[in-house]
Amino acid sequence: MANAELMEKIVSLCKRRGFIYPSAEIYGGFRSTYDYGPLGVAMLRNVKNQWWHAMVERRRDVVGLDASILSTPKIWEASGHLANFTDPLVDCRKCKERWRADHIDGVCPNCGSSDLTPSREFNMMFKTHAGPVESDGSVAYLRPETAQGMFINFANVLTTSRKRPPFGIAQVGKSFRNEITPGNFVFRTREFEQMEMEFFVPPNEAQTWFEYWYQERFAWYQENGIPSEMLRLRHHEKEELSHYSAGTVDIEFDFPWGWGELEGIANRTDFDLKSHQSASGEKLEYFDQVTNSRYTPYVIEPAAGATRAMMAFLIASYREDEVEGEVRVVLGLHPKIAPIQVAILPLMRKAPLMEKAGSIFSALSDRFLCDYDDTQSIGKRYRRQDEVGTPVCLTVDFDSLEDDTVTLRDRDSTSQIRAKVSDLPSEIDKLFSAFER
Amino acid sequence: MANAELMEKIVSLCKRRGFIYPSAEIYGGFRSTYDYGPLGVAMLRNVKNQWWHAMVERRRDVVGLDASILSTPKIWEASGHLANFTDPLVDCRKCKERWRADHIDGVCPNCGSSDLTPSREFNMMFKTHAGPVESDGSVAYLRPETAQGMFINFANVLTTSRKRPPFGIAQVGKSFRNEITPGNFVFRTREFEQMEMEFFVPPNEAQTWFEYWYQERFAWYQENGIPSEMLRLRHHEKEELSHYSAGTVDIEFDFPWGWGELEGIANRTDFDLKSHQSASGEKLEYFDQVTNSRYTPYVIEPAAGATRAMMAFLIASYREDEVEGEVRVVLGLHPKIAPIQVAILPLMRKAPLMEKAGSIFSALSDRFLCDYDDTQSIGKRYRRQDEVGTPVCLTVDFDSLEDDTVTLRDRDSTSQIRAKVSDLPSEIDKLFSAFER
Repeated sequence: MANAELMEKIVSLCKRRGFIYPSAEIYGGFRSTYDYGPLGVAMLRNVKNQWWHAMVERRRDVVGLDASILSTPKIWEASGHLANFTDPLVDCRKCKERWRADHIDGVCPNCGSSDLTPSREFNMMFKTHAGPVESDGSVAYLRPETAQGMFINFANVLTTSRKRPPFGIAQVGKSFRNEITPGNFVFRTREFEQMEMEFFVPPNEAQTWFEYWYQERFAWYQENGIPSEMLRLRHHEKEELSHYSAGTVDIEFDFPWGWGELEGIANRTDFDLKSHQSASGEKLEYFDQVTNSRYTPYVIEPAAGATRAMMAFLIASYREDEVEGEVRVVLGLHPKIAPIQVAILPLMRKAPLMEKAGSIFSALSDRFLCDYDDTQSIGKRYRRQDEVGTPVCLTVDFDSLEDDTVTLRDRDSTSQIRAKVSDLPSEIDKLFSAFER
Repeated sequence: MANAELMEKIVSLCKRRGFIYPSAEIYGGFRSTYDYGPLGVAMLRNVKNQWWHAMVERRRDVVGLDASILSTPKIWEASGHLANFTDPLVDCRKCKERWRADHIDGVCPNCGSSDLTPSREFNMMFKTHAGPVESDGSVAYLRPETAQGMFINFANVLTTSRKRPPFGIAQVGKSFRNEITPGNFVFRTREFEQMEMEFFVPPNEAQTWFEYWYQERFAWYQENGIPSEMLRLRHHEKEELSHYSAGTVDIEFDFPWGWGELEGIANRTDFDLKSHQSASGEKLEYFDQVTNSRYTPYVIEPAAGATRAMMAFLIASYREDEVEGEVRVVLGLHPKIAPIQVAILPLMRKAPLMEKAGSIFSALSDRFLCDYDDTQSIGKRYRRQDEVGTPVCLTVDFDSLEDDTVTLRDRDSTSQIRAKVSDLPSEIDKLFSAFER
């Protein structure tokens, strides 16, 4: 399949099946924002929950945080964002359009004029005012990244959680960047969701932990269903590194338009803690009682995009195969990522079948993400579930009323087995376990 | 305990134990924003996940949504927020301070002057600009509520999810209101998290569903551990109702400063869909194939605050009792809400105990929210876990190395049982089940 065609199919599927809608569509959309529909929000929750579970809940050395989006300019002054988080822009003097200087070739793409202003730096942070008076003193920024929330709370977390380096603080949440050229669907949007972790380590262990974390994060995408050939690690060249970075690796994904960044893992040294210490006057150091010495930890940061990851899971799992002589669209999603894990389908719209299916829904929905559907023919319903990546369809038929068994259909092989209702949780777990590597 | 004292103790516990910190504290705080620390984010996640599970995952008639925070003025024009979502403000001509007209008594609380301007309406929405040019055309608002995201996506969800009224669309997410007088800790903040559901019904079923939903929501708080005597329903008087509402009930909680709203359940009639239909020109109706008729559904809306609910769970569960002759602070949280469900404690910092505790952590942390702690004496660790509401402490001692058993200590009774490591999941579930009503 051509890449442009694949992308078109995915965007269309996302809209048609309720994964992702253009935001405020009835008003003609709004500035490249998107709304996540019933299946999209379920899938995005899975992506974020899998990350949180792997990065926080399963680990003894990482704790969570949820910092505010509205933030004081002092943070962004200390971090360097106020001075440096900019894009170069030029204005067309003729038609008044504004462009990114590095994206055009001396000529306005709108009217063709070459009468352009010199480029100037445009800050990409969203600015607003908090409080009743619109003055310099009330300026607030929407955070452009979650990371600074962890740095400014370093001392608070150290004191209250009794962790000591090496330990991490993790956060999932929305960030906002006033991108001049958002695009590629949800790959680059002005409002997006991040999954970031700051791992604080003794300076002499930084390189070891850096290597540990990029391998760990590379494995995470595979464990959740992205084939290894669609992923690669790209080490930044010396010239490419941010001034504070002692090393950065990108995890890249084979997007339809080429390799693109899913996540960056950086050794940020002690830059952030030292910047905030110097700007705030508060000590952001660790006193090691064993060695009786005080030091500023280095930070290893794996920084991923949740919406971007979701898009990669969709692209990686999309396929068309042939079943019963017809083309079938399938999202081969890992059960941990699929928005519906078990679709519960009465064979027909008959009261006893619907009732039994309803009671199975009640029993299973505490444990699995379930859908109940009694519309259309069973064949059409299977196709609809295949198309949204549901790994298991459970059909209640007339035999079910007699012997308390149901059919479990596997999405990928389309093979069916018969299972007792009382055994369903373990039978479904067994089908899911085929996905574990 | 006096109410002011209780509130002080809870705020102090929240800070000291890593539930809630003032945001940007190293920079002196920032405009009544708060950051949720390691235990706070875990507890807030539990509150939101319990709501989502009860309102979406367990139901066949409700689907989820996650709409963007940045939103077009067109939405807020249609909803009435641009015109009416205002507070009356007055300026003191002498000291230039600004006040809510309905909160002062003709005299500036700052300088005592009575030379005040007439009051004027101040819109509470946060305004920013999206895109490279700051002009009227680029204005974006941070949503002051999540509800409108459901209304503007009504047709999209109807088409893509195959639901028909009665059905609901639910959302959890941040909203922003430029409150002039935030206060009472996280009860009223400018940035806060909502849990809202819009339930679309045939107009003649609206009253029935209204009653259903306020009872359902009232029960939810009790199921998650708030005693019924701390909750009440308050029906709005006719004069109090919003112009579009055919009935509103508040679920109120007995906060230390008096009864305050946790959640409002309103019969919003067809006001919202009709407003957006008329503003956008898109049909927002439902065609009922059974009766062959077209109608605009009525909307029943249970709208809760996640951060406010978390605060109520903290207040309701705080108690001091006496154990072994000492005052003990306990958060008697329901296990579904507690930020740590099982604390895994090696009796001493000895390698074999720590290793065994570590492997139990690995085994249990896929299923329970676990903490591992090997600092201080076991008695002190029990107290620390009591104070943050951990229902079960699991202690690994030297016998554990011999017979593969551990001690399970119940937070509320402080009684202990001995359990086999292989039986832990079911033994812990059994202890938790005592909390189910």
